[in-house]
Amino acid sequence: MNVEVNLLSDLTIAKQAVMQPIQQIANSIGISEDALELYGKYKAKIDPGKISKKKNPGKIVLVTAISPTAAGEGKSTVTVGLADAMKQIGQSVVVALREPSLGPVMGVKGGATGGGYAQVLPMEEINLHFNGDIHAITTANNALAAFIDNHLHQGNDLNIDPRRISWKRVLDMNDRALRHITIGLGGPGQGIPREDGFDITVASEIMAILCLAENLVDLKERLARIVIGYTYAKEPVTVRDLGVEGALTLLLKEAIKPNLVQTIEGTPALIHGGPFANIAHGCNSIIATRTATHLAGVVVTEAGFGADLGAEKFMHIKSRQAGFAPDAVVIVATIRALKMQGGKAKDQLKEEDVDALLVGTSNLSKHVETIRAFGIEPVIALNKFIADTEEETKALLSWCQEQNIAIALTEVWEKGGAGGVELAKLVLNELDKPSNFAPLYDLEDSIENKVRTIVQQVYGGKDVVFTDAAKKQIDQLVSYGWDALPICMAKTQYSLSDRPKLLGRPTDFTITVREVKPKLGAGFLVCLTGDIMTMPGLPKKPAALNMDVAEDGQALGLF
Amino acid sequence: MNVEVNLLSDLTIAKQAVMQPIQQIANSIGISEDALELYGKYKAKIDPGKISKKKNPGKIVLVTAISPTAAGEGKSTVTVGLADAMKQIGQSVVVALREPSLGPVMGVKGGATGGGYAQVLPMEEINLHFNGDIHAITTANNALAAFIDNHLHQGNDLNIDPRRISWKRVLDMNDRALRHITIGLGGPGQGIPREDGFDITVASEIMAILCLAENLVDLKERLARIVIGYTYAKEPVTVRDLGVEGALTLLLKEAIKPNLVQTIEGTPALIHGGPFANIAHGCNSIIATRTATHLAGVVVTEAGFGADLGAEKFMHIKSRQAGFAPDAVVIVATIRALKMQGGKAKDQLKEEDVDALLVGTSNLSKHVETIRAFGIEPVIALNKFIADTEEETKALLSWCQEQNIAIALTEVWEKGGAGGVELAKLVLNELDKPSNFAPLYDLEDSIENKVRTIVQQVYGGKDVVFTDAAKKQIDQLVSYGWDALPICMAKTQYSLSDRPKLLGRPTDFTITVREVKPKLGAGFLVCLTGDIMTMPGLPKKPAALNMDVAEDGQALGLF
Repeated sequence: MNVEVNLLSDLTIAKQAVMQPIQQIANSIGISEDALELYGKYKAKIDPGKISKKKNPGKIVLVTAISPTAAGEGKSTVTVGLADAMKQIGQSVVVALREPSLGPVMGVKGGATGGGYAQVLPMEEINLHFNGDIHAITTANNALAAFIDNHLHQGNDLNIDPRRISWKRVLDMNDRALRHITIGLGGPGQGIPREDGFDITVASEIMAILCLAENLVDLKERLARIVIGYTYAKEPVTVRDLGVEGALTLLLKEAIKPNLVQTIEGTPALIHGGPFANIAHGCNSIIATRTATHLAGVVVTEAGFGADLGAEKFMHIKSRQAGFAPDAVVIVATIRALKMQGGKAKDQLKEEDVDALLVGTSNLSKHVETIRAFGIEPVIALNKFIADTEEETKALLSWCQEQNIAIALTEVWEKGGAGGVELAKLVLNELDKPSNFAPLYDLEDSIENKVRTIVQQVYGGKDVVFTDAAKKQIDQLVSYGWDALPICMAKTQYSLSDRPKLLGRPTDFTITVREVKPKLGAGFLVCLTGDIMTMPGLPKKPAALNMDVAEDGQALGLF
Repeated sequence: MNVEVNLLSDLTIAKQAVMQPIQQIANSIGISEDALELYGKYKAKIDPGKISKKKNPGKIVLVTAISPTAAGEGKSTVTVGLADAMKQIGQSVVVALREPSLGPVMGVKGGATGGGYAQVLPMEEINLHFNGDIHAITTANNALAAFIDNHLHQGNDLNIDPRRISWKRVLDMNDRALRHITIGLGGPGQGIPREDGFDITVASEIMAILCLAENLVDLKERLARIVIGYTYAKEPVTVRDLGVEGALTLLLKEAIKPNLVQTIEGTPALIHGGPFANIAHGCNSIIATRTATHLAGVVVTEAGFGADLGAEKFMHIKSRQAGFAPDAVVIVATIRALKMQGGKAKDQLKEEDVDALLVGTSNLSKHVETIRAFGIEPVIALNKFIADTEEETKALLSWCQEQNIAIALTEVWEKGGAGGVELAKLVLNELDKPSNFAPLYDLEDSIENKVRTIVQQVYGGKDVVFTDAAKKQIDQLVSYGWDALPICMAKTQYSLSDRPKLLGRPTDFTITVREVKPKLGAGFLVCLTGDIMTMPGLPKKPAALNMDVAEDGQALGLF
């Protein structure tokens, strides 16, 4: 094993990198000046309408993962490194990622742009406000909330029931004190008192809409369809009823354009949209992914958390909507996460434990089966961490070989693209094979059956149970004619089940759906299981405590 | 009178204008490529550290107004038009404005970038998210709120009294339902329940700080000084105690750079910072104004609402802090506002009424005296509106002549810079005279005397009364040693007094100060009078109802 491991911080490595002017990156993939709007020297927005369309768009590689630890398994790092590796061996490639949410950046993570020598740049700008997309979504979301409360205050012509308003406010912040609030207090001049709450922006339906919209016209139509609540007569009230879809679209007219940046190795990267995968659909925007397929032969993209969450939603929600499909899938695995899945205590994951590792492979095994169920043969990226021992690495490689699963040791964190060449070759090999992709359920199936299919075929569970409240909601959804939509499961990322502590590959479990929420703008039905937080909290010592700015304006302590 | 008045909307006029690439504008005032960060083709941020300093910085022209109507008297329009006029007659000039707040744009105004042929461009971008400064301020403000509530939740080591937290959350939105809220509801995992509320972002202390900071180091020091509340032992708690001034500065490191755009006539415009003038200090940033003085011979800037508010604060807060002073002052007056000040009913302001107009000149007269009290001879800009009659215009011009007040009929809305040449000449004439500027009070005066000076010399009132609560607060401020700071009055813009309906030139009135709030980061003491809203509401039919986007991405209905 390589013992001279580089232990510079991500930010230090990022700052040492020499970036190319973003025009040069744009130029390298044929983006004309006309399609490019610069945001500083190293960021740009591109106008998808000004990108010429290829007859044969590029292929799509989806990077997903096993069930992760709380720290994540380096999916973005592998996504970036894989793209850099492909570039190194002469493949035309673009990487397509999600935008980081500021809440987790300030809270735990400190950054979400890959790590080590596999990062997108400028990491500090991307991790902070980037080109303003998430702020625009926050603004549109909260403008809608203000229009709703103003409607109540000004006489409530639409007869909206203040107890049945489902539209919540959002902030791009981890702020638990805003989860449950009462608003409109203080007397007749201060609005109508009612219960409310804030979600984190990446959980907003508008984030999902931005990521699923085909263009500006589709965006406006989706915004108009949002159900914000119900009247006293229990009839749905939409944004169209309020007449503000034009204003909301106006607030998002720049946010809908994908952002162009570069990796440390100069690979073009489109970063656009960023819904979480446990509470939302977890994929970057269709517009960015589609645009990327017209800019390169291969697009490497990721979906959040494990294959049970982001990848399932990539297949059933994003791909179905967009009319494309992944041509290859990479599952990122780490020794530490497998040991945790094998029962090793969280604070002992740095200790060698081949037995725990091998027990934990059951989790990997299920995710492999899931991807195969979609008709795709996955490739495993073993994302190397410093604490991994030679014995452990060997054990996992052998296990995969025995199981006939393609695996490559991936050292992109330490070595950049050079550490991902073996992975790149395995993936390119899969791309040469014809695609047999097929979704696991039809939109016309009943809501219950669609969820059952996901529970059984993706989670490996026995069945699904709906609470009485959820059953009643389903009856309502059917009566409104809203049932022929894909399902967006809200489930813990830590377990294949809905219980975070049930590790490995649980079987015989049932999933309980306690609420079914229609998201007509996004075009899916959210099924809530377990205690899924839509507004995270900050830890006792937030990452923010280490952050600073040097006198010359350089970011410090950002991760 | 000219009857062929152009009635195109501001947005239509703005779209018909041909903009120069922003590099060309930068070039015209000697801003190097190196100092310029492009935000699209027509906006940029500039790095003040990379602007070379002149030995003799440019002169500053401050544009203020009489007591305005609810629609405003076109101060931004005159500011832009005056700069364009100066450019037309060969003067090197930069205009320095505030950034529009989205709340009013969505609510009543629809836009705040000047009007007619005296606008800054691209008006739709400037009116929407611009370059993200206000979003960054919102984010920093709310991150601090989240850190405070997280501190309470995680054990409250600092012993903060949840009832005495003065730091509020903000949104750049008109949202009355958020004025008075309760947060932290829902049980032990959801934070500490307490009363809270949202202000509009432009009322935030961080907005004031950004506008008064000299540079990044000063910004961080000011953020550290913010008092967020008090302990159970009534000791002040600051941002420094929480240890998050570095993170907050990091969130603002781009927002602190001024934004460069252009007027319809290609005059360079720095637009940066945007506090309201009734609840905050109402001026654009010191950094932008100072930078502008190093880029041109004359800087035309504005301060919010009437001379009793924005201009007074420009003199006593901004100028004192920055060490500069206005070299000339323009007071914008309109026939309609003067008629209103003269007692004409709001819905009859379009009717000719010379008598009401002449009665209303008492208001103008007081503002002229106020500016003279600061040692500056003001110039009146009569901002022409379509409904003004020839008789009215003549009457006002004669009145000014009799009073020995310089006045110019200003038609920049209709004619651009050409409509402001007479005004420009009068102003340039004043700039040739030596400056006798002096503030009206010393920082070392007692709080009571500082307020009394403003009430008597600026508002023309008899005296000031402090409520018992305010007196107690003053005692506390003195005991903490926080009294040697300038005063930031929070007062209605509609009257020289604290009663919005007391028009003209009231005398013999007293002002009641009901609360004195220390803003140690901004470096001033806010004295609240009357019912000053820090979070506006939306009207029954918000401007947003008319907004839309065309298929090609063009903004519609934004004006």
